Amino acid sequence: MDASPFSFQLHHVDRGCAARRSSFTTPHGVVELPTFMPVGTQGTVKGLSISHVRETGSQMVLANTYHLALRPGEDVVAALGGLHRFMGWDGPILTDSGGFQLFSLANSTQVTEQSAVFRSHIDGRKFELSPERSIEIQEALGSDVAMVLDHVIALPASDADASDACARTIRWARRCLDARSRNDQAQFAIVQGGLLKDLRVDCAKQLGELHEFEGYAIGGLSVGEGEADMLRIIEATCPALPTEKPRYLMGVGTPQDLVESIRRGVDMFDCIIPSHNGRNALAYTDAGRLRMRNLCYRQDDRPLEENCPCPACRHSRGYIRHLFLANEMLGPILLTAHNITYYQRLVSQARAAIENDAYMDFYHERMAGWGRENST
Amino acid sequence: MDASPFSFQLHHVDRGCAARRSSFTTPHGVVELPTFMPVGTQGTVKGLSISHVRETGSQMVLANTYHLALRPGEDVVAALGGLHRFMGWDGPILTDSGGFQLFSLANSTQVTEQSAVFRSHIDGRKFELSPERSIEIQEALGSDVAMVLDHVIALPASDADASDACARTIRWARRCLDARSRNDQAQFAIVQGGLLKDLRVDCAKQLGELHEFEGYAIGGLSVGEGEADMLRIIEATCPALPTEKPRYLMGVGTPQDLVESIRRGVDMFDCIIPSHNGRNALAYTDAGRLRMRNLCYRQDDRPLEENCPCPACRHSRGYIRHLFLANEMLGPILLTAHNITYYQRLVSQARAAIENDAYMDFYHERMAGWGRENST
Repeated sequence: MDASPFSFQLHHVDRGCAARRSSFTTPHGVVELPTFMPVGTQGTVKGLSISHVRETGSQMVLANTYHLALRPGEDVVAALGGLHRFMGWDGPILTDSGGFQLFSLANSTQVTEQSAVFRSHIDGRKFELSPERSIEIQEALGSDVAMVLDHVIALPASDADASDACARTIRWARRCLDARSRNDQAQFAIVQGGLLKDLRVDCAKQLGELHEFEGYAIGGLSVGEGEADMLRIIEATCPALPTEKPRYLMGVGTPQDLVESIRRGVDMFDCIIPSHNGRNALAYTDAGRLRMRNLCYRQDDRPLEENCPCPACRHSRGYIRHLFLANEMLGPILLTAHNITYYQRLVSQARAAIENDAYMDFYHERMAGWGRENST
Repeated sequence: MDASPFSFQLHHVDRGCAARRSSFTTPHGVVELPTFMPVGTQGTVKGLSISHVRETGSQMVLANTYHLALRPGEDVVAALGGLHRFMGWDGPILTDSGGFQLFSLANSTQVTEQSAVFRSHIDGRKFELSPERSIEIQEALGSDVAMVLDHVIALPASDADASDACARTIRWARRCLDARSRNDQAQFAIVQGGLLKDLRVDCAKQLGELHEFEGYAIGGLSVGEGEADMLRIIEATCPALPTEKPRYLMGVGTPQDLVESIRRGVDMFDCIIPSHNGRNALAYTDAGRLRMRNLCYRQDDRPLEENCPCPACRHSRGYIRHLFLANEMLGPILLTAHNITYYQRLVSQARAAIENDAYMDFYHERMAGWGRENST
């Protein structure tokens, strides 16, 4: 294990909260934490060329095992040189396991102890995903970090359902470790347990004892519960996780969610929010969100945000509004670039704040700027 | 007129044909001719950020008076700093006059000697375009080159209709000159005359005698006639135009059309073909066109074209195919960038060939490479 190309360095914990400044080393480079990973579900961050992704300041991107296995197939990705070459991205890549589809495709999914059986959302074909198969696909894709297959359920859930899914997730995590054959791909385990604090803590401790994992994720949140519940679970779970491994909060969230979670000790995030909302004319700024179709921007010659280096902010708000009203592709393209750049600037500022033991000042400043209207 | 920021330098005419190597100087820079202008109908080359447009090697772009006047309105563009600042493009811009809409919206347009009255394709509102109004809009937009309002008709047309539209175009051209109030905007006249060679030559000579025009266009082609007719008209018209002014063939065409027309003395082109076809998965190469949805590209790890510097050619054909099958925006984005880059490399190679009196060698080499399948 000493020859592992993966390592984690914890540089500093903020004096005023649990926020951590750390680095995660992978075969495709070092990721400075806390960080945000833009989502490239089908092997592309929607609307962005790779040079635009790089310009956002993103260090690591996420791709989706379920989607790529269905189309074009992991064999095609492997034949085309693996996911890095396929996407043209030479930085670190994390692949999810398909576990999220146990939740999002629940109506057409059967879960047994052996595996989950889906119906493809593309053509209805049967698609079976076991822990072993998920790792096999992720190894064929060749991501830097593979996620274990977990059992994600909707919230609220009964205690029995949460407990059952949590126990299965731990058993499946062990099977993922056993299925591992590549030394150049890390595995992250995933903590489940619904909204049950004790179950979450117990799950975190059991997984933490499996030292082969290079990192730990908190899964099964942002699936129907409120923000207060989510933060309560994050706050309880982080201290139960190993200190010397990265902590990744899956599928979360808004800018507020990020600063709240960093404060509680989370190191890594991914979410479709900045790209999805960007495609729908919503722009994030330090002063809150701008709905770019609004009439007030018709002749507004200011950029979305002063001093933002993104390609959208070379234009006026009036131009961005025009692009959306005229149904031009460039509107979604530019706001996707802006929003992901905004997220990357946010985590970059968070990193600097932690280094200076000033995270809580940063936290309050951002929250005040966003105000109430930014809460969803 | 000596203080004009516009000038034209004819550097060389190929010894083997009528191909010209020249330069056109504008307030926003020098354009090396022959050149191709990508189309930014609504103030954006569809799918491309301005940095991507620049990366294609484009020197000058086109925008559309009719579309911008309807949405967002030339007053909004002017309030946002004019078209260059609006689009974020600091190079030369040419605006068409709206004359093409007399053809493309013929079913909802009434043409009188005074003006053309349209119904907006967006909301059915009445929209009147006279020569004076077209110049007024183009001056508000602030393009480097304004086109005169011409009367474009469908082909084939009766001799009487062609003659009538041609005479009106000449009268309207004089009105455009009279309407001119900016010294930093050139005006190009447009030769009409359908497929009647003598009418075209006469029109070219009459317009050529109006020395205030900084350039001349051949309009009303690629509107239903065959390629042989189009080339016959180009071949007859070019020698009748002033030698010391740029010649612009409007709305044309395929790569073959470009090399055929350059051979006959055309200096400038614009066309939606490379961008439109790119959005529909068709890629141009020296070996002909590739339909990127085809199964044969599934595991093809070659770029679309060797040594192409465009962002698409950093990826494999297999990846491009995947993007189109998965309905990802990045497919249209990348093929638009590739095809416009292909056009710019083509005119750049044409320029070099003319300088070396080797245009006809270049012509035959490209035609042989494309073969028959590239004829439309």
